[in-house]
Amino acid sequence: MLLNADAKGVFPIAPTPFFEDGAIDYASLDRLMDFYHASGCTGVTVLGQLGEAAKLDAAEALQVASRAVARSHGMPVVVGVSAPGFAAMRALTHDVMALGAAGVMIAPPNTLRTDDQIVTYYRQAVEAIGDDVPFILQDYPLTFSVQMSVDVIRRIVTTLPSCVMLKHEDWPGLEKISALRRLVATGEMRHIAILCGNGGLFLNHELERGADGANTGYAFPDMLCDTVRLHTEGRRDEMHDLFDAHLPLLRYEQQPGVGLAVRKYVLARRGLLSHATQRRPASQLTPAAMAEVEGLLSRLAQKDPRALRVEV
Amino acid sequence: MLLNADAKGVFPIAPTPFFEDGAIDYASLDRLMDFYHASGCTGVTVLGQLGEAAKLDAAEALQVASRAVARSHGMPVVVGVSAPGFAAMRALTHDVMALGAAGVMIAPPNTLRTDDQIVTYYRQAVEAIGDDVPFILQDYPLTFSVQMSVDVIRRIVTTLPSCVMLKHEDWPGLEKISALRRLVATGEMRHIAILCGNGGLFLNHELERGADGANTGYAFPDMLCDTVRLHTEGRRDEMHDLFDAHLPLLRYEQQPGVGLAVRKYVLARRGLLSHATQRRPASQLTPAAMAEVEGLLSRLAQKDPRALRVEV
Amino acid sequence: MLLNADAKGVFPIAPTPFFEDGAIDYASLDRLMDFYHASGCTGVTVLGQLGEAAKLDAAEALQVASRAVARSHGMPVVVGVSAPGFAAMRALTHDVMALGAAGVMIAPPNTLRTDDQIVTYYRQAVEAIGDDVPFILQDYPLTFSVQMSVDVIRRIVTTLPSCVMLKHEDWPGLEKISALRRLVATGEMRHIAILCGNGGLFLNHELERGADGANTGYAFPDMLCDTVRLHTEGRRDEMHDLFDAHLPLLRYEQQPGVGLAVRKYVLARRGLLSHATQRRPASQLTPAAMAEVEGLLSRLAQKDPRALRVEV
Amino acid sequence: MLLNADAKGVFPIAPTPFFEDGAIDYASLDRLMDFYHASGCTGVTVLGQLGEAAKLDAAEALQVASRAVARSHGMPVVVGVSAPGFAAMRALTHDVMALGAAGVMIAPPNTLRTDDQIVTYYRQAVEAIGDDVPFILQDYPLTFSVQMSVDVIRRIVTTLPSCVMLKHEDWPGLEKISALRRLVATGEMRHIAILCGNGGLFLNHELERGADGANTGYAFPDMLCDTVRLHTEGRRDEMHDLFDAHLPLLRYEQQPGVGLAVRKYVLARRGLLSHATQRRPASQLTPAAMAEVEGLLSRLAQKDPRALRVEV
Repeated sequence: MLLNADAKGVFPIAPTPFFEDGAIDYASLDRLMDFYHASGCTGVTVLGQLGEAAKLDAAEALQVASRAVARSHGMPVVVGVSAPGFAAMRALTHDVMALGAAGVMIAPPNTLRTDDQIVTYYRQAVEAIGDDVPFILQDYPLTFSVQMSVDVIRRIVTTLPSCVMLKHEDWPGLEKISALRRLVATGEMRHIAILCGNGGLFLNHELERGADGANTGYAFPDMLCDTVRLHTEGRRDEMHDLFDAHLPLLRYEQQPGVGLAVRKYVLARRGLLSHATQRRPASQLTPAAMAEVEGLLSRLAQKDPRALRVEV
Repeated sequence: MLLNADAKGVFPIAPTPFFEDGAIDYASLDRLMDFYHASGCTGVTVLGQLGEAAKLDAAEALQVASRAVARSHGMPVVVGVSAPGFAAMRALTHDVMALGAAGVMIAPPNTLRTDDQIVTYYRQAVEAIGDDVPFILQDYPLTFSVQMSVDVIRRIVTTLPSCVMLKHEDWPGLEKISALRRLVATGEMRHIAILCGNGGLFLNHELERGADGANTGYAFPDMLCDTVRLHTEGRRDEMHDLFDAHLPLLRYEQQPGVGLAVRKYVLARRGLLSHATQRRPASQLTPAAMAEVEGLLSRLAQKDPRALRVEV
Repeated sequence: MLLNADAKGVFPIAPTPFFEDGAIDYASLDRLMDFYHASGCTGVTVLGQLGEAAKLDAAEALQVASRAVARSHGMPVVVGVSAPGFAAMRALTHDVMALGAAGVMIAPPNTLRTDDQIVTYYRQAVEAIGDDVPFILQDYPLTFSVQMSVDVIRRIVTTLPSCVMLKHEDWPGLEKISALRRLVATGEMRHIAILCGNGGLFLNHELERGADGANTGYAFPDMLCDTVRLHTEGRRDEMHDLFDAHLPLLRYEQQPGVGLAVRKYVLARRGLLSHATQRRPASQLTPAAMAEVEGLLSRLAQKDPRALRVEV
Repeated sequence: MLLNADAKGVFPIAPTPFFEDGAIDYASLDRLMDFYHASGCTGVTVLGQLGEAAKLDAAEALQVASRAVARSHGMPVVVGVSAPGFAAMRALTHDVMALGAAGVMIAPPNTLRTDDQIVTYYRQAVEAIGDDVPFILQDYPLTFSVQMSVDVIRRIVTTLPSCVMLKHEDWPGLEKISALRRLVATGEMRHIAILCGNGGLFLNHELERGADGANTGYAFPDMLCDTVRLHTEGRRDEMHDLFDAHLPLLRYEQQPGVGLAVRKYVLARRGLLSHATQRRPASQLTPAAMAEVEGLLSRLAQKDPRALRVEV
């Protein structure tokens, strides 16, 4: 089951769970996968930046991917394969596709500048991994310092048929979604799925601009699923009400650097992870930050009872 | 009346109002200044990045500063004097201080990297403008690509007595505020004012970490004043309720690039600017974006009636 | 006399001479201009980065430009007008063209990334300065962090008729010259002058790739003129011999940061500047560096007697 | 035999030889190692950036390191282990040290900015690889965009005893060498070896400033050895004569991007590599560039007969 351009809904970016000693906590990974499925997620992404992929050795990375696929309940599993060289990217892609992954996600190296450099990089990446492997184009200038214009995305989509999805996390990015959708409407670009990252900070508006869903790691993937569902059902006010209720926490979680610590804290708080541990190097939550997160959960619970309830 | 390290409250970053033909709209500037004063602002910053300073010629810049001072109702007026060279910085500083400005704001050039380079730059800037001119240190890595560690700020504050305020807009930045306040508590650094920018996105938490107020351009400076006041009065829940009600719009307004267009649109919508015009080059709001802003105002009005009322 | 696309030869980038107290040394500027003319230079560029333009106030900048024009001996004078905003760029351009400048040079702000951003910036710059002012496109990624592809240059040249010259200082850049010349040969781009900067480090090869000359500040502009002349006359071995003899010093002078100090030291050593003074902030030559420069001059003098002779 | 702070001489950065089909050419690697030894090199570095390390898969990387160690003729072999995460760095370090490597080289990730970030990174790297593994600190801001001040290097050297060498390739960097040597002289920093990279562009002056040798990949490592030897023997004029004779080619070879293609071309031309092949992605030499290289070799041969003689 390979990913295709009709993907939609919510693909959470799964964190990699660790025990306090740094060993991988597969039981928590199973629990996460079960929860994603129960929440209505339509796919899962593992070994992204958020998944602390760079802190895993090659064997561990394969084990995580393998376990996720085994516990996917039919959801397609996408694997992050960004690497400093095409040899490592090819090797990891080959291995995870053999394990049953549905596709891979590729971020650009932060040395790319010109339009041609970006297009060339993805062409070479496809040569490396093979054009039969569906891939997701990750457009995240805030983190990668690579700016992809609408025309660059069009060129990549047009010349590389295995590009099936855009992980949209440009900021500002609303006009980019509209521009891409216009290109599809006028026949200048084939349709690809657009799922939104950037912590979900603009998800409510992104859906209304034509995005197909979310591809981010916010600690309430169930809320992301509800947001997409309410949007699909045309229940606009309810969608915005739900989203806005979560926005204070979501904004807090989307801070660079410390965001993953917040996310793992909340996932542990919800009973989804046994431990909030990150492998080193890692930003840690201070007591002041923990108190802020507790305060945000408390306030959120007034509007969304899931905020204080253990889910699993 | 010079700015000093006891500053607190809200110093809005004033936009520069233009007529549709690009001429400066001084009547709107007066109206803004009156509104800032009536709202309880304790100072005003003009000719910041947000103020389209780079689109004014030298004579216009002085006129804007002069008009703001003349209409300041006793509020200290801070002037952005960041420039590619110290000659221009010195000249502008000299002129605006002679006009009655209370101090200047200096952003770092985006070529600075090491700690020593940053400290040296500010030492040279003070040599250029004179050590009798109070200055605000602007710490905004997202925009300027310059990362100031806590120790760099301590070194600048310690070696340059004319540094009286930090415009704090690091992201994440909560722990930085706490760390700076600890240095003051332990006597390792003298006190300086910390007013927060970054669109106000974390203002509620920043106040609780020890910040003295806001120094940003959100189109509801009256809300910023209320937030600071509620915090000062210890009315914590009300403070967060008010802030969270504004967060969806505030987040929308804080988008890079298009943010100023949103801000001017809302200020015009509120009757504070006669026109939302920016000088070129400028990002423009599309009809879809305008509809989004209207939707956000509409939803906000359910909680804060100022959102749809013309103020002036 | 406006600059046009047929420019060729050597346009030295003139330093701004200062007395030891920082005042502008116009007598030395006159001497430089006389020397440029006597050496066979075909133009002069003032107020470039190398000219410490950012350390001059607006009145001084105009005086320098004015003096250079007055002492130009018929050579076209190009003025650097790069600025953080279009208002300042327009004002300076207007003033220097009125004084008799032949054109202006515009470097890109280091925030530009995508192809469209670069093309748009130059379109807006031309709107600001007027399409009747010839301009030089400065392509110097090492300093400005902006990478212009061949296609971006083609788009700028094609859409903006007032672009008459490329200051080529990409590194590596030889293939870029060849590619641009091919575009002209096949009729895909109109001809523009290509003069080379980057300290002249590859000038011998650049000429053989089709460049029209040099536009850089090496302290021996007379050698640059000879190099171009020998190339034009087809005296290939002599050209390379002369160039290679200078390469050790030229390489030393082209160091970032400290390069201008070397350059002014050598120009003073040659009697062309009365003082090697730079305005602050400035890198200074240490005694060790001075000894190295003296050693390089000494070795150079064995092959080119100008290295130890006072010229003027 | 572990690397220590007394290292000196020339450690060439070895390219990885490939057959035309991309397979690793171990016979050429052997030939290179033999030649390095015969030329008087005192060590070898493999799997650096220049070694196309990112284009090898994990097994190949180990094979290259293993082969180099097996053919080292007693020269210490340093292995580049820079990686996007500490897990991969630890794994590769562990494996190559077990194979007999003498130490590892670690470049900083290009996201580091503040002094503390840089020092922390190396502390964490040592935690990952073990403090019993000697490492080389690579200071190459041009490529990595990380600027290490003298004080940052002092902090790293002082807090991390396993740092035994600096690969110095800052530009300009002469004063940095002098400053580091002064710190040793005054007892503020322990001695470490300083070997110079940056293509060797300033090697003659760097030696005179106190550097211990070269650690770069110029296609004439025999010339690098002679330069260091002449310097050590105090034969200053001969040293500069030899270096200056090579400077035109050395400068040509040090171009970013295309440099490796030049280097492999010349090494093949000299009979040291069977093929100039790079794995993809790679910059290729155009016919014009090949003609330039041939011209440079030809001119060089007038002063150094090795330029046209097949060595092996």
